[in-house]
Amino acid sequence: MEALIPIQYDENENRIIVIDQRALPEKLEYLSLHTLEEVYWAIKALVVRGAPLIGVTAGYGLAMYALNLRTEDVKSFQKEIQRAKCYLKNARPTAVNLENAVDYLVNGILEVDNVSEAQHCLLQRAKHLQKQDESISEHIGMIGSELLPEHAVVMTYCNAGALATSNRYGTALAPVYKAAERGKEVAVVACETRPILQGARLTTFELTYNNIPTTLITDNMVGWYMATHHVDAIFVGCDRVAVNGDFANKIGTYSLSLLAKEHNIPFYVCTPSTTIDFSAETFSDITIEHRSPNEIRTMWYQRPMVAEKAEILNPAFDCTPVTNVTGFITESGLLKPPFKREMFE
Amino acid sequence: MEALIPIQYDENENRIIVIDQRALPEKLEYLSLHTLEEVYWAIKALVVRGAPLIGVTAGYGLAMYALNLRTEDVKSFQKEIQRAKCYLKNARPTAVNLENAVDYLVNGILEVDNVSEAQHCLLQRAKHLQKQDESISEHIGMIGSELLPEHAVVMTYCNAGALATSNRYGTALAPVYKAAERGKEVAVVACETRPILQGARLTTFELTYNNIPTTLITDNMVGWYMATHHVDAIFVGCDRVAVNGDFANKIGTYSLSLLAKEHNIPFYVCTPSTTIDFSAETFSDITIEHRSPNEIRTMWYQRPMVAEKAEILNPAFDCTPVTNVTGFITESGLLKPPFKREMFE
Repeated sequence: MEALIPIQYDENENRIIVIDQRALPEKLEYLSLHTLEEVYWAIKALVVRGAPLIGVTAGYGLAMYALNLRTEDVKSFQKEIQRAKCYLKNARPTAVNLENAVDYLVNGILEVDNVSEAQHCLLQRAKHLQKQDESISEHIGMIGSELLPEHAVVMTYCNAGALATSNRYGTALAPVYKAAERGKEVAVVACETRPILQGARLTTFELTYNNIPTTLITDNMVGWYMATHHVDAIFVGCDRVAVNGDFANKIGTYSLSLLAKEHNIPFYVCTPSTTIDFSAETFSDITIEHRSPNEIRTMWYQRPMVAEKAEILNPAFDCTPVTNVTGFITESGLLKPPFKREMFE
Repeated sequence: MEALIPIQYDENENRIIVIDQRALPEKLEYLSLHTLEEVYWAIKALVVRGAPLIGVTAGYGLAMYALNLRTEDVKSFQKEIQRAKCYLKNARPTAVNLENAVDYLVNGILEVDNVSEAQHCLLQRAKHLQKQDESISEHIGMIGSELLPEHAVVMTYCNAGALATSNRYGTALAPVYKAAERGKEVAVVACETRPILQGARLTTFELTYNNIPTTLITDNMVGWYMATHHVDAIFVGCDRVAVNGDFANKIGTYSLSLLAKEHNIPFYVCTPSTTIDFSAETFSDITIEHRSPNEIRTMWYQRPMVAEKAEILNPAFDCTPVTNVTGFITESGLLKPPFKREMFE
């Protein structure tokens, strides 16, 4: 069976090919993205999601757009790219990878004085982001897999697997895949993750696709499961980490961290350096995206599931304080905050 | 607007009329139950649910069945009633009210030596169960409402409101309704309660139907909500309480109790004496119902939401230790376990 490839850039046709994650687990379908608007939409509508994948998609999106620009005037080219960068950044506010990715691309062309060189540079940088993402996942996988015994049960949340990145390991699931490659027996407990069900739809899909024994529970079963079963470790991903180690991740991560603490289960955050926001001191500096109530009211249903007059809250993320975290698994090792740029050089 | 009446017994036609709770919040529909099999099905398929309502439904179900029996031989009548009692008990295993209700009915006819007298006795006892249920809810409401300030935010879980009982107050929502009647301003935060969404479908329906301001969150938002908003108290119902105060309630109650403890929010269990199992010492004596994985895999959806090869767990309840409970609100007052029968005489 072929490895799942969540994103590919097709250089011949200057297009981006992604797995349409909204169709999983029922259908494994690919979509081609050709315009900046399609890339924005794909990120906003969760065709692609997961902080690292959002970053790589935005990078390729900006490069693809740049290659289609027909001007030879470098000033107006730069202006267009700046506009496109701001546009993409607005697609989703919480994952820092999105802004880091497009900033990284644009920083490369600030001094460039001809359009075709700038176009080339943007594409090279987009490719670099994907290579970096692969290398980060490999390292996180190796470091994280060392933490697991020969027969391990891992709990995970949302989807921080291959489908959340641009490679076949992911972040929070990289230790699982690496441990399995090395002959360890690893089973995973996936939490459903309301309202978009990334755990149910995506995590169970990619794990069983890769023959990892997988058990699904709904989010409200976490405490019960911990009290009645053995769990060796919890691995979660993250969307933005503050310098002190407070981090934003999918809504429910904070509850999970408290329940883990109560049941003495080690709680690891798989943290690519690309998710660290060096401008955020603590979680009070992190913006939380609130999404449409319709995702809860009717999105997956043919009929309303909530009384019309009820208010519905739909924060997409919550913040977990560093005090609930056993360790941060980064590409540079198991680190203790505060994070410093030097740690990753 | 008329009060919601979850169950009515129609004496003229010897039938039971219930709200079909599967159709809420979209449609307020009533169903007539005429046979023992229909009553069993209505309990099993969650047409009616909630421990007190299950008890009253089973009581009327047994009486209705008895009234239809055409024998005049009291021995064979008794035998039939015993068989029907065991049949109904098997509909759902966790709520103690079901077995308590049918045992209470049958105990009334053990010494009776003519069929029509026995039939009459069973019906009187079924009616008594409903009156008792009403009186219990009134008392729980009055006692619980005293615990709330003039402007209160209450969090609740699953549905332990009118729709879980045979009256218009419910158990966990009785303090809310009573406080509102007395002029207090009470807003409720309802948790969605996967997989059957009783919180989303039923609790938001009945609260907004009764003009109580209601906010819905998904179950994985509980920690986030507690950390970022004020909550005065949590009220939950229960399906079976052991003598020491350990109790079974809808899956997720245990997690909720731990999160409440962590955020210093008082956690009250609204406990009709009918939910106390005097034969259970602690929660290790409580049987947990496991339901079909299909409730999670596809039940509310038109398409699969979980990978086919993944295992799915679906316990309907979990157990919360007495140590996580601030107080038990019973019809006899705010009690501290161990529970004794004398407390309710």
